[in-house]
Amino acid sequence: MRKVIHSFKVGIALVLVSLLYLLDPLFSQVGENAMWAIMTVVVIFEFFAGATLSKGLNRGLGTILGGGLGCLAAALAQKAGGIGSTIIVGTSVFIFAAAATYTRMVPKIKKRHDYGAMIFILTFNLVVVSGIRAEKVMKLARERLSTIGMGFVICIFISLLIFPIWASDELHDSIASKFEDLARSIEAICLEEYGGSNGEKENQPAVANLSSCKSVLNSRSKDESLANFAWWEPWHGKFGLNYPWGKYLHIGEHLREVAATILSLKGLSARHEPPTTLRQTITEPCEAVGSLLARSLRELGESILKMRRCHPGASIVPELKSMRLELSLFMSSSNLQPIENGDGLAMATFLLLLMDI
Amino acid sequence: MRKVIHSFKVGIALVLVSLLYLLDPLFSQVGENAMWAIMTVVVIFEFFAGATLSKGLNRGLGTILGGGLGCLAAALAQKAGGIGSTIIVGTSVFIFAAAATYTRMVPKIKKRHDYGAMIFILTFNLVVVSGIRAEKVMKLARERLSTIGMGFVICIFISLLIFPIWASDELHDSIASKFEDLARSIEAICLEEYGGSNGEKENQPAVANLSSCKSVLNSRSKDESLANFAWWEPWHGKFGLNYPWGKYLHIGEHLREVAATILSLKGLSARHEPPTTLRQTITEPCEAVGSLLARSLRELGESILKMRRCHPGASIVPELKSMRLELSLFMSSSNLQPIENGDGLAMATFLLLLMDI
Repeated sequence: MRKVIHSFKVGIALVLVSLLYLLDPLFSQVGENAMWAIMTVVVIFEFFAGATLSKGLNRGLGTILGGGLGCLAAALAQKAGGIGSTIIVGTSVFIFAAAATYTRMVPKIKKRHDYGAMIFILTFNLVVVSGIRAEKVMKLARERLSTIGMGFVICIFISLLIFPIWASDELHDSIASKFEDLARSIEAICLEEYGGSNGEKENQPAVANLSSCKSVLNSRSKDESLANFAWWEPWHGKFGLNYPWGKYLHIGEHLREVAATILSLKGLSARHEPPTTLRQTITEPCEAVGSLLARSLRELGESILKMRRCHPGASIVPELKSMRLELSLFMSSSNLQPIENGDGLAMATFLLLLMDI
Repeated sequence: MRKVIHSFKVGIALVLVSLLYLLDPLFSQVGENAMWAIMTVVVIFEFFAGATLSKGLNRGLGTILGGGLGCLAAALAQKAGGIGSTIIVGTSVFIFAAAATYTRMVPKIKKRHDYGAMIFILTFNLVVVSGIRAEKVMKLARERLSTIGMGFVICIFISLLIFPIWASDELHDSIASKFEDLARSIEAICLEEYGGSNGEKENQPAVANLSSCKSVLNSRSKDESLANFAWWEPWHGKFGLNYPWGKYLHIGEHLREVAATILSLKGLSARHEPPTTLRQTITEPCEAVGSLLARSLRELGESILKMRRCHPGASIVPELKSMRLELSLFMSSSNLQPIENGDGLAMATFLLLLMDI
């Protein structure tokens, strides 16, 4: 559904920007440079509002920087004249292009300003090279910049004001839903595998849970790009300015560790079928641990979703601790699986403490 | 080092393409359209040869398709004339832009042809809109296409022939080095934590190993994009055409599972310090298992690196099996950690079998 909305928005933006060409009074103002406005809209308009904003600002910054330096270099080359100007242009293109390309590969710049650096190279090159031919570089640059600005304004207007799709909402919801996924996986393992109900007939949901667990494990790059876009997004809805997006990444990191623990616990239980007698003795504590863990994870997830401080945490922590003590007593009477649960439990306690900051 | 080479290559390519502008005989041929060649080089030239090729081909495809359809629409609009032509242009822009944007979000197309779809929108829009103004759309389109082609040829030439940086090599090496990373982590855990040498003083390398283990866990998106680029790369070096890149992704998937197991084993050992007496009894088997696992992982990694069939596998598998049996005997005398080793072991056996296909 959101995809359809996004497609319509792109369509509308392009029609609007095409009007620069189609309507005679507008065209007489901007002329052939309207091309740059169209290009800007096509290239900038992204799915998330933050991504659009980030690309747009980067494009603006790159264009201005590249254009400015390009004009300087072109002026220098014009002064030299003759073959000297060609040499100056050639070397300056080489130096700036190589330097900017190298900068693009620095991780920190790659993360936020990759696109800006590319536009810088492009603009610098175009300006410096056409500076030799065109007499009025400055006028050309100003006109192009203004049409790029028009494209940018249209994009931002449509992207941010008409049914905006916020990366911050997406990140917020996806983190909260991960808690739910993990809670369900823990329940599935503890109740179905070790628990009383035999797992045979309910094999399908268990596999589904496993895959949701794996998707949590593999969610890192998606989270990072979302947090990056969210960083660009202005104040809106429930998120203030300078909202701590980095914390979301930390939480995601811990959730991935929990997911890794759950996965290996799952692998363990799949491979070492416990004998029935042992199974019966561990059924009860396993079920208790599983539901307690799942409950606390759910509560954490909900508290994040609704953005309130996790007050029940105060009541859960001692409960988890006593459960853990009980388990470690149990453990010493020689059964093997709950130690892993204890591990997950310790992890959850850690998480809980982290949340309470 | 490779980054410096890449920067120099970009610089050289841009200087070459700028010659279209700088040298009078060339400029008289291509005119202002040389701009498009510069743009093509800046936008297409990527770090890996496969990425450059993929972007270039996508750009070509998108330009041709978009240009062709755009010419058709423009011809249609010209026949209508007057206000009708404006309406035709507007609606066709809206429909094609929305449709192509929607297509871009289909996962399969997003993976391979995202850039091509974007260029399609751009070209279509430019051609159809300027078709109303310019009398010779066809000529314009042909000239632009030929300059884009020049830019493409320069890029491909420099990217593929001068110190090429292959994504396939990168993928190949990174998969092989992951085996080594995991082997080192296993050794570190088994020998340092459970083993005789006390872990206190050697805490630093253990942490380093943990982080390498985590980076293996988080390597999925990088592997996928590399495999995607590798798919585009032509026959070269030791890789033939239709090399099974998908298999690398499968192996990566299994390695990530092993990494998850190792991580949770590590968490386990950090939290539950075994009593010294128990510790002494498990020292020997733990060391043995650790070194055996590490050795088999290393051998697997090496066999992948050198691309020979893993013959020693035949001798390792029974060894692993007997070790596992021994461990499970040991396990039943009430100590808790080795079961996890048994798990990693089973995983490794699985991997081994997988490799032998």
